[in-house]
Amino acid sequence: MILSIEESPLYRVANPRSIAFFGASNNYSAMGSMLMTSTREAGFAGPIYPVHPKDETIQGLKSYRAVADLPETPDLAVIVLPGRIVAEILQACGEKGIRQAIIVSGGFKEVGDDGIQSEQMLLEIAEKYGIRLLGPNCLGVANPYAKIATTPISIEGDPGYIGLASQSGSFIVQMYNYLARNDIGFSTAFSVGNQLNVDLVDCMEYLAVCPHTRVIALYIESINRGADFINMAKSIIPHKPIVALYVGGSETGRRAAFSHTGSMSGPDHIYDAMFKQCGIIRAHSITEMFDICWLLGSMPQPAGSNVAILSHSGGPGATAADICGRVGLHLPSFTAKTLERLTPYIPNTGNANNPVDLTFTRDIRDFFLKIPQILLEDENIDMLLIYLFMPHDIMKRRMRGIGIPEEKIDETINEIIQATGDIAGELRQNYNKPVVGFTFRSMEEPINHAFIKKGVPIFPNPERAARSMRALVQYYENREHLTTTVQKEKQ
Amino acid sequence: MILSIEESPLYRVANPRSIAFFGASNNYSAMGSMLMTSTREAGFAGPIYPVHPKDETIQGLKSYRAVADLPETPDLAVIVLPGRIVAEILQACGEKGIRQAIIVSGGFKEVGDDGIQSEQMLLEIAEKYGIRLLGPNCLGVANPYAKIATTPISIEGDPGYIGLASQSGSFIVQMYNYLARNDIGFSTAFSVGNQLNVDLVDCMEYLAVCPHTRVIALYIESINRGADFINMAKSIIPHKPIVALYVGGSETGRRAAFSHTGSMSGPDHIYDAMFKQCGIIRAHSITEMFDICWLLGSMPQPAGSNVAILSHSGGPGATAADICGRVGLHLPSFTAKTLERLTPYIPNTGNANNPVDLTFTRDIRDFFLKIPQILLEDENIDMLLIYLFMPHDIMKRRMRGIGIPEEKIDETINEIIQATGDIAGELRQNYNKPVVGFTFRSMEEPINHAFIKKGVPIFPNPERAARSMRALVQYYENREHLTTTVQKEKQ
Repeated sequence: MILSIEESPLYRVANPRSIAFFGASNNYSAMGSMLMTSTREAGFAGPIYPVHPKDETIQGLKSYRAVADLPETPDLAVIVLPGRIVAEILQACGEKGIRQAIIVSGGFKEVGDDGIQSEQMLLEIAEKYGIRLLGPNCLGVANPYAKIATTPISIEGDPGYIGLASQSGSFIVQMYNYLARNDIGFSTAFSVGNQLNVDLVDCMEYLAVCPHTRVIALYIESINRGADFINMAKSIIPHKPIVALYVGGSETGRRAAFSHTGSMSGPDHIYDAMFKQCGIIRAHSITEMFDICWLLGSMPQPAGSNVAILSHSGGPGATAADICGRVGLHLPSFTAKTLERLTPYIPNTGNANNPVDLTFTRDIRDFFLKIPQILLEDENIDMLLIYLFMPHDIMKRRMRGIGIPEEKIDETINEIIQATGDIAGELRQNYNKPVVGFTFRSMEEPINHAFIKKGVPIFPNPERAARSMRALVQYYENREHLTTTVQKEKQ
Repeated sequence: MILSIEESPLYRVANPRSIAFFGASNNYSAMGSMLMTSTREAGFAGPIYPVHPKDETIQGLKSYRAVADLPETPDLAVIVLPGRIVAEILQACGEKGIRQAIIVSGGFKEVGDDGIQSEQMLLEIAEKYGIRLLGPNCLGVANPYAKIATTPISIEGDPGYIGLASQSGSFIVQMYNYLARNDIGFSTAFSVGNQLNVDLVDCMEYLAVCPHTRVIALYIESINRGADFINMAKSIIPHKPIVALYVGGSETGRRAAFSHTGSMSGPDHIYDAMFKQCGIIRAHSITEMFDICWLLGSMPQPAGSNVAILSHSGGPGATAADICGRVGLHLPSFTAKTLERLTPYIPNTGNANNPVDLTFTRDIRDFFLKIPQILLEDENIDMLLIYLFMPHDIMKRRMRGIGIPEEKIDETINEIIQATGDIAGELRQNYNKPVVGFTFRSMEEPINHAFIKKGVPIFPNPERAARSMRALVQYYENREHLTTTVQKEKQ
C-alpha cells in the first residue's frame, strides 16, 4: 500500500500540470471538444495543447499539427479519436515522452474479436513506453481540486468527499448533478473503461490515500484481479469505508456488462462473499450507493443501531418504524427520565413512545429543537430520524392565523425555514450523533435544502433513510470485525 | 357487492350536498378552520354551516350556535372538537337527523382504556341514530370530483384515477402534492382512523364501483374483518387492481401501529398469504405503492414480461438490465428483422442487443422515435424502458455547435423538449405497449415533465421503474389466476 497519492500511477492522471487534447476541434459539439470545454470550465490552470491536423487554433487555443511539435512534454494525453488511429497516436505520445493517457475512444475489447486485437496493440505500445492509461472506452477523470474534468458535461457544485472508481463513465457524469443537488460533492472520480493497464484496484489505492476522499464508491461490472482487490479493500476498510454496486451478478446484468466493457462477470454469491470478506458495503443501486456514501462521509460513528423516530404524524412514523425494523435497526424504549422530560411537549392525542408522534405541531421549536435535544440526550439512543413536512400552503395559513401581514408572509416563512435548518445543523454538531430526515415532499422544497446545507441529510422516503443508516452502522461493525480478525491472525 | 356508489354507506360522506362544521373558528390556524378552508378551496358548491358557540360568522359564513338551529339537515357533519365533547355533539347531530359524520378528533381507542370507553359511547350513539362515520382520529375524505377535502391542506393538481383508503390521514395529505408533481391525480381518498363503524372494507367497496377510480391503494396497519376483506378483494381484482402497503408486520411497525390507531396487527406472513390469495399487489413503501398505481392506472396490459431497454450509455443500461433480471422481468433477444432494422442507427462503438446502447446520441429523433418504433414493433417485446439524460448544459453545447444564435438557444431547447415529449406520448399511444422512462437527474427537469404530461411515466432510478413494471405484469397474472380458480370452483 502506497503512503501518498504522489506514489500512485494515477497521480499525474488526476493531477496533471499540462494536457494534450486529441480530438478537440472547432466543432463545439464533437465529443473531444466537449471534454476540453469541461476541463477548461473546471478551471484547469496549466497549459492545454490541442493537437489537430488542420486548424491553427482550436476554441481559441493555439493548436499543433502533431504531438511531436508540442513545446513541452505534457503530463497527460487525452485521446478522443476514431478507434483505428488511436494506436498510432499513442505511439507518437510515447515517443514524445508522455507517460499518462486517457483513451476515451471505444471500439476495442467491448466490440469483439477485432477490438480485442486492437486493444492488444495498445497494451504493447503502453508497455513499450511505460504509459499508464485510463480506458480505452472511458471518460477519464474528474478532480475538482485539480480542476480537471475530461467529461462531456461540466462539474457542478462544490468539491466534496466521495471518491468514485467506475466501470461506467456515465456514472461519473451522473454524479455531478446528483451530488450537487444534495450539496454533497465528490473528491475525485475515475472512469476505468476497459481497464487496459489501470483498473479499479489502482483507483482504490489512489483514493485510499487521497486526503480529500472520506468514502470510496465503486461501480463494478467485473473484477479482473480478485486477490489484489480483496487485499486492497482489506487494507483500506480499517481507515476508510468502501461502498460497491455490482451489476454483473444477474444473467441480464452479466450480458449487459459484457457488451458494455467486454467484462466477464462472476456469479452474485461470489461477489457477495468477497464483499463480506473485505468489509465492503454492498449497495443495490446507484441511488443507494450515493445515499450510503452521504452518511458515511458526513455522519459521526453511531454507538449502535438504536434509532429514535420523531414525527407529528402517525402514518409516516409507522412506516419509518416498520422499515427500520425490517433493515435491522432497533427502536428502543426511552429511559424513564426521557419520557418524563417529553411529557410537557406531547398532546394527549400524541404518543411519547418510540416513534414519537405529536399528531400535530403546536410549536415548531418543540418539534425541531426541544424534543430532539431530549431524544439525543437519551443514553439508549444512537441516531435520530426526523420526519419533515412543512408545505408552504400550511405555513401560510399559520402565518395568517397569527396575524402576519400578507406581504410579510413569504419572507417570514423563509426566515423560519432558515432558522429551522440552523437548529438542525446545531443539533447534529452538538450531540455527535447521526441526525437524518425524511420527507415525501419534493426534494427541491426550501426546508429540505435548509437542512442539507447545515449537514443534515434528507431522503425522499423513510426506506432510503433507514437503509443508509443501517449501512452506516454496518461499516463500523465490519471495521471492528476486520480489525479483530487481523489481530487474531497475527497472534 | 354493490352495483353503484349511491348504494355505499360512504356515498353521502364522499359526495355530500351540504356540510356542518364543528370546530371551525375565526382562528384560521385551528385544525377545524383549516379543514373548512380546504373544503372551500376545493370548490365545494353546496351550503356549509359552521356551528360555533359564540361567533355569529365564521370565516365570513353565517354561523349557528347549535346544530339544532340549522335551517336544514345537512348530509354530513365534520367534527373537529376536543375528544370529551364529541359524544355530546354526535348525539345532537343524530337528533337533528344527520346520518353521515367525520370525526377528526383523537383521544379514543388509540390512547388506551379511557379512550376505549369514550369510543364505545360514540358507537352506541351512532347505532342509535343510524349514523355511519369515518374516524374518530382521522382526516375524513378528499374527493376532487365532488369538490370536498376535509384535510388541513388543500388538494393540488387535477382529479385522477387512484382511489385510496388509508389508516393514516397523513398519507391522504401526502398524496396531494406527491401525485400532483407527477401529474397523476387521485379519484377519492378515505382516511378511516380508528374505523368505528366504517372500515377499509367499506372504502374498498365504494372505490370498486367509483367510476373515476382505476386502481385502489390501501395503507394498512391492521385488518379487523379478515374474511370480508378477502371476499371483497377477490370480487374487485378481476375488474380493478388493488395495491396494498402493510406496515404492521414487523415488530417495530406493530408497536407503532398500535399507538397510532390502536390497531392489533398480525404477523407479516399471514398478511402476505392473504394478499397472495386475493391477488392484491403488495407494495413495500408508500413510494412504491404510488409508483405501482401509476403504471396500473395509466398503462395498457402488457402481453408478458419481456422488456427492451434503450440507453445511450452503458452503465445506466447495465444497471437497468441487472435490476430487470433481479425483479423477474426478461430481456429477450430481438428478432433478426429488428437487429437488421437497427443496424443503420447503431454506431460501431454501440450495441444493438438488449439493452440497446448507442454510446452517444447522434440524432435525438433516432433515440426517441425511430429506434423505439423498431423495438416496439418487435414481437418479442412487451414493454419499453428508456433512459433519459438531456441536461440543459449538454443541449446548450449542441445548439452552439450547430450554430443556433445564443439568444435563441433556450427557446430552441424548450421546443425540442416539448417535441420529444410529444413523440414519446405518440409512441405510447400508437403501439399499445407500456413505455416507461428512468433518469438520475432531478425529476423537476423539463424533459421529465414533458414525458409525464404525455402519459409516459418517468422514475428517478431504474429500480423503481423495473419494480413497477414487474407489478404491472403481476396484476394481470394474478387476475388470470383468480379467474381460473373461480371457474374451477364453479365446476
